Amino acid sequence: MKPTVLLTNDDGVSSGGLWAAYAALSEIAEVTVVAPATQQSAVGRSISIFEPIRLHKVIINGFPAYAVDGKPTDAVIIGLYALRLNPDLVVSGINIGENLSFESIMTSGTVGAALEAANQGPRAVAFSLQVNDQGMKFDDPRSDMMHDDSIGDVVKDVCSTIFEKGFPEHTDVLNVNIPAEIKGGYEVTRLAHTLFHTGVEERFDPRGRPYYWIDGPLVEDAEEGTDVHAVRQGRISLTPITLDCTAPAAFEGLRKQFC
Amino acid sequence: MKPTVLLTNDDGVSSGGLWAAYAALSEIAEVTVVAPATQQSAVGRSISIFEPIRLHKVIINGFPAYAVDGKPTDAVIIGLYALRLNPDLVVSGINIGENLSFESIMTSGTVGAALEAANQGPRAVAFSLQVNDQGMKFDDPRSDMMHDDSIGDVVKDVCSTIFEKGFPEHTDVLNVNIPAEIKGGYEVTRLAHTLFHTGVEERFDPRGRPYYWIDGPLVEDAEEGTDVHAVRQGRISLTPITLDCTAPAAFEGLRKQFC
Repeated sequence: MKPTVLLTNDDGVSSGGLWAAYAALSEIAEVTVVAPATQQSAVGRSISIFEPIRLHKVIINGFPAYAVDGKPTDAVIIGLYALRLNPDLVVSGINIGENLSFESIMTSGTVGAALEAANQGPRAVAFSLQVNDQGMKFDDPRSDMMHDDSIGDVVKDVCSTIFEKGFPEHTDVLNVNIPAEIKGGYEVTRLAHTLFHTGVEERFDPRGRPYYWIDGPLVEDAEEGTDVHAVRQGRISLTPITLDCTAPAAFEGLRKQFC
Repeated sequence: MKPTVLLTNDDGVSSGGLWAAYAALSEIAEVTVVAPATQQSAVGRSISIFEPIRLHKVIINGFPAYAVDGKPTDAVIIGLYALRLNPDLVVSGINIGENLSFESIMTSGTVGAALEAANQGPRAVAFSLQVNDQGMKFDDPRSDMMHDDSIGDVVKDVCSTIFEKGFPEHTDVLNVNIPAEIKGGYEVTRLAHTLFHTGVEERFDPRGRPYYWIDGPLVEDAEEGTDVHAVRQGRISLTPITLDCTAPAAFEGLRKQFC
């Protein structure tokens, strides 16, 4: 019997990235798509506790899917508890745009969905594809770059390795980032500190009142061994992520200060 | 000269919890309030990249504040980069409702704001107050429970200790949870796995179509040493949080599997 996969994302159920993952995974697994109905980038691990959630059966590209009126985290919860799926693996992506560094994984809806899954029990993999043109991240339809077989091959290879050898130990979520141009193999990496120099751009509306866009350039240099460095070298970055953000190294000092 | 604090939250700029923190902190620091204009609970570390952000000067309870039309993360970014504040400490809260366990800290806007601050440079403390009635978490105005001086005293004590002795080492964010009824002192804790048994409740609209509410009961038992356990014992939980979710224990196994 084929292993089962719950496939979700943050770009929405019609994203070319999701369907590229579907095409690759359906060769090796029974895949159920449960994804946000609309674009939900940068919502991190938001969860809908003030609004009820609707679930719609849809057909996309000739395949059945569930569209969830909510966040990526909601889609995972609906898949597990309303649809009662019991997947061997949750896959989130392929996101159009890399999800690298501490900063990005916590603001990413793609990684947010994977973290939610892991918190609920199933292990999870997040796939993201580097794009060199930042504007392209949010183009839609964005199927063009998804016709590149080498990208689907990475999804198939990572997941079939997991099905054969088991999910990596000491890991809750495996965060996979695929370079725009693949020049090397896999590199096991740690998270970089940040991917962008965060900042704001002030603009003025036609009435002369200011408003702000969050924006900032990419960081120039990345330390060797980090996810940012690996992807910039053209290697496929595999970062093991833990849900537990406790910093035990701080315990002794904190006790001295407060107890 | 007094130390400087950027004070934010996720319940919105008019929350009684924020102003309880303000009252406590203004005795020991120069406090600038930069907070979401409206309720933003459970948005985690969402960041507004599709919408421009407005900033409004407002007067609340007789004090000046900045209301940001965005998420808690946006409020921090606007405070640091549009208002060019350079605070000694970022404080987020006091949230009405505990933020305990892996699960809650990643879906919490209160902790999300603190994580964003720490990623940008300033160290940050998140304060949350346990409530026994889950519905009460989102009541507004909710100033009643904020007239309890013992809650403000915790904020003042934690922050004055940080100003005197420095921010705890090996920590990016200090996550402080105050029990509804304080029965003991501080306990340095690790994050529990979860606070709720996540699930969904199916209901039917007047037209017979289903919709879902995310909900679930609190977990019954909490391991000793965790944040959930400490707060249930009536102790003030101090959890040191790291931004780096890399799981280095997984490196060797992953390399064997993939490289």
